[in-house]
Amino acid sequence: MKLREIDWETFHALDAEAKGAYLMRESRPEHVLYAQQFGRAELEYIGDLATTIRRISKSRDGRLYLGRLLEDRRAMLYFSQPSSRTFLSFTAACEILGLAIGEVRDTATSSEIKGESREDSVRTFSSYFDLIVMRTKQKGLAERMAWVLSNSERPVPIINAGSGADQHPTQALLDVYTLQRSFEETGGIDGKHIVFCGDLARGRTVRSLVLLLRHYRDLHISFIAPDEFQIGEDILSALRESGANVSLGDRLRDVLPSADAVYMTRIQDEWDTAAGESKSISLEDYAITEEELAFLKPSCVILHPLPRRAEIAPEVDRDSRAVYWRQVRNGMWVRTALIAMLFGVDGEIQSYSGKVPHGPAPSA
Amino acid sequence: MKLREIDWETFHALDAEAKGAYLMRESRPEHVLYAQQFGRAELEYIGDLATTIRRISKSRDGRLYLGRLLEDRRAMLYFSQPSSRTFLSFTAACEILGLAIGEVRDTATSSEIKGESREDSVRTFSSYFDLIVMRTKQKGLAERMAWVLSNSERPVPIINAGSGADQHPTQALLDVYTLQRSFEETGGIDGKHIVFCGDLARGRTVRSLVLLLRHYRDLHISFIAPDEFQIGEDILSALRESGANVSLGDRLRDVLPSADAVYMTRIQDEWDTAAGESKSISLEDYAITEEELAFLKPSCVILHPLPRRAEIAPEVDRDSRAVYWRQVRNGMWVRTALIAMLFGVDGEIQSYSGKVPHGPAPSA
Amino acid sequence: MKLREIDWETFHALDAEAKGAYLMRESRPEHVLYAQQFGRAELEYIGDLATTIRRISKSRDGRLYLGRLLEDRRAMLYFSQPSSRTFLSFTAACEILGLAIGEVRDTATSSEIKGESREDSVRTFSSYFDLIVMRTKQKGLAERMAWVLSNSERPVPIINAGSGADQHPTQALLDVYTLQRSFEETGGIDGKHIVFCGDLARGRTVRSLVLLLRHYRDLHISFIAPDEFQIGEDILSALRESGANVSLGDRLRDVLPSADAVYMTRIQDEWDTAAGESKSISLEDYAITEEELAFLKPSCVILHPLPRRAEIAPEVDRDSRAVYWRQVRNGMWVRTALIAMLFGVDGEIQSYSGKVPHGPAPSA
Repeated sequence: MKLREIDWETFHALDAEAKGAYLMRESRPEHVLYAQQFGRAELEYIGDLATTIRRISKSRDGRLYLGRLLEDRRAMLYFSQPSSRTFLSFTAACEILGLAIGEVRDTATSSEIKGESREDSVRTFSSYFDLIVMRTKQKGLAERMAWVLSNSERPVPIINAGSGADQHPTQALLDVYTLQRSFEETGGIDGKHIVFCGDLARGRTVRSLVLLLRHYRDLHISFIAPDEFQIGEDILSALRESGANVSLGDRLRDVLPSADAVYMTRIQDEWDTAAGESKSISLEDYAITEEELAFLKPSCVILHPLPRRAEIAPEVDRDSRAVYWRQVRNGMWVRTALIAMLFGVDGEIQSYSGKVPHGPAPSA
Repeated sequence: MKLREIDWETFHALDAEAKGAYLMRESRPEHVLYAQQFGRAELEYIGDLATTIRRISKSRDGRLYLGRLLEDRRAMLYFSQPSSRTFLSFTAACEILGLAIGEVRDTATSSEIKGESREDSVRTFSSYFDLIVMRTKQKGLAERMAWVLSNSERPVPIINAGSGADQHPTQALLDVYTLQRSFEETGGIDGKHIVFCGDLARGRTVRSLVLLLRHYRDLHISFIAPDEFQIGEDILSALRESGANVSLGDRLRDVLPSADAVYMTRIQDEWDTAAGESKSISLEDYAITEEELAFLKPSCVILHPLPRRAEIAPEVDRDSRAVYWRQVRNGMWVRTALIAMLFGVDGEIQSYSGKVPHGPAPSA
Repeated sequence: MKLREIDWETFHALDAEAKGAYLMRESRPEHVLYAQQFGRAELEYIGDLATTIRRISKSRDGRLYLGRLLEDRRAMLYFSQPSSRTFLSFTAACEILGLAIGEVRDTATSSEIKGESREDSVRTFSSYFDLIVMRTKQKGLAERMAWVLSNSERPVPIINAGSGADQHPTQALLDVYTLQRSFEETGGIDGKHIVFCGDLARGRTVRSLVLLLRHYRDLHISFIAPDEFQIGEDILSALRESGANVSLGDRLRDVLPSADAVYMTRIQDEWDTAAGESKSISLEDYAITEEELAFLKPSCVILHPLPRRAEIAPEVDRDSRAVYWRQVRNGMWVRTALIAMLFGVDGEIQSYSGKVPHGPAPSA
């Protein structure tokens, strides 16, 4: 199934998972638009490739090798919705592979003021580049451009780097990778107890990650949140269908002792209505301080998508179970892995590291 | 004739063509300020070089070769007048040749607030770079800086990437190149019928292009526009002097059947006075939709400098005669060719592609 | 003494010189935060290295050699206080050594709006890079981040590229380097007569430079300024302690005939209170025009940190004693030298140029 063989209306009407089939070509992405386009085999492969790249990067020779792979290519970072952290992470990912960069960060500088459609703008900019990393407030623009460019004379892959409150697939992938790394010595993600805490209703991060966790077996997942910010029913039923053991609650300390990972999130009060839904919440009930650390298993890891506010005290940073700074860096490795796959240099990278080159096994 | 041998007032008082002689050194540009500085031999040479570069770029080896040519050089993109498309096109052109880039896009970030002259600002920034690509609202700043830097201890070439409503020479050059490519198999530009349509009075694009077309023989040029936006008398008489056959009108369909190229432009209503000159125009009379396509010869090409609005319907994009997306990419190749000439690596490039290295023949 | 072995409060309470000991490791900087962290041996070494780099850069082979040294590294330019000149100078310095760049210029684009601490922001961004060049209005942020990162799992060096009205160490270093170069043939800085003129109270530039000049012997230093903008008592007594011969005055012409260097500065009226302290000053009394040139020795050099206003007439640019444009470029060389030292490739550079590799002699 290819994007060239489906008309826009039909494609657009599909759900994210069905779209996924059109975005993959033999388990390699042609575009990266939705977390759901990746099955378990791909998740494992991406994590494995990210680790390979991370290890190669430890030596100067390795860094020079990686930096030659795509030095004849150029990426455009089109960030009409500002985000320095995602921008810099993708910048570094491109630079690791040697890609040159062009950037649009302020769309006031584009021709839109002259009445050009955003589609024409992006297509124009794409003319000069071999990859587009796109972050925008406009829901669906990345998907639309992926279809337009795949149907043009000069197809260019697109990575969705976040679109409004909608999708941010590379965040979900880096979260999975952080769990994979954290459980590397303990049998992987299957069978673990993972706690999500905070604003589970409004953050896209948790929703996307949970959808990917459906690919793992025998999970116990706890959602700890004030009632008004509890995880959505749609996610819950999707998760239950996958066979996971799910529990809901509002008392973090009850679940900490058995947790293998605690994923903390920020109360996103920027989405509050005039009623100020967040104001009545006792933030300390949904926070980890030095006190909570005492309840955690020695092997438990603490994740956070960042930026954080009060939900993790700065003192916690010094605890070896706090892996959120490593999680930040994992994002860079995962993005590098995805770019390598888009350009088909992942096999070469595996060969360099002494592995037999192979793509991900076809997913179910 | 060199910029070092003429004082500023004398140089500044010359017309663009006379200035051209001071900007060229044996048919190679020392700066790129005016479309008029190039004669026919140079136009042919630039087009030929752009095509050579474009072809070399098709292979990875070729791209790596090009990317080594100027990897020891740095370009500053000074864009105090925003334009993402021109900015990205030059970014890509620099990157193709391996130039590193530094950029100033928002002059609010410069020292001008401390009372520095813009001339001092640009000279300071130029200290760190080997090439300046400059886009500014200030008419004449690029010319002034070219003179200042050519008369300093450290001459640095300047490319004018658009100055106000004034000059935008690389746009005119990419338009000529698009015509050259389009007529590659049909004997070149000489003798062709070229239609210009839309806002011919206020767009600098058509004016600059027409001035360059004077170097070609036996042209028939039709200008289709509402009376109030018809091409200026100065351009018309310059064109007639060159021997071209010129016709004016306001009915697009009358000229379409015999056209070899149709150059569409946008009604630039941002220049309207309070009277709203553009409001009374029937835009559909100056537009190409699927209907108009039926009137065109199979070999006719449709150009547009972009951004477009209603003057070309999106459905037209799918017609093979629509070359405006290719025209966008031609801009990148032409700019790459110009940079190669400024640094004198054009001969090497020709050798690489198996051609006997040669500069353009001296123009008349 | 290392930053890892001192707690934040103790470190923060030290004066700049005492802090210096924690920022250096065997005469090489671990971070560049204060001009005062460098002793005479380091100043000489940095100047020598800058000259070596400058000379290597004259040939294409040399530029290619330098550009390979750190091509496997990435620098972040975090400029929350805008400054195009410093930004571009560091951009060029990084590019000379082959470092790839990521930039944050507008902190409105960061996550601070979501309530993240600036410390978390910078730490996040630093995760992707191997060097941070930081310019900010927040006094002490660079110092804080240096401590935080040196105490993290992933230490990353920081260069202070200017913090508010506080410190701008690379400016002071480039000024010293310009004096070193200017007096290369005349026995160096020792024993010279250096005149400072203009707004000596409010510009951090002169203050920092004078503190470094204490490392030189037998200097005569004249401060020429209106009474209200005369140099501070703290600087004067520090200077006198170092054994320099100091004189104060408000008549520039009196000191010009014996000057070996004249360092001009701009009246910084942006710091005026409502009273408008600068308004009553006769700017022409603190300016150099063609008239003043007649009073200068043939070997005297004129410096200015730029941007300038009326204190140096544009005609003076043509005089060979005006070295402020060269001074601009010296900044690029000094910054390149510092980056080379931070990454420990300075020895290699000296070997390449045929010198026996050596670090600076330990300073007193």
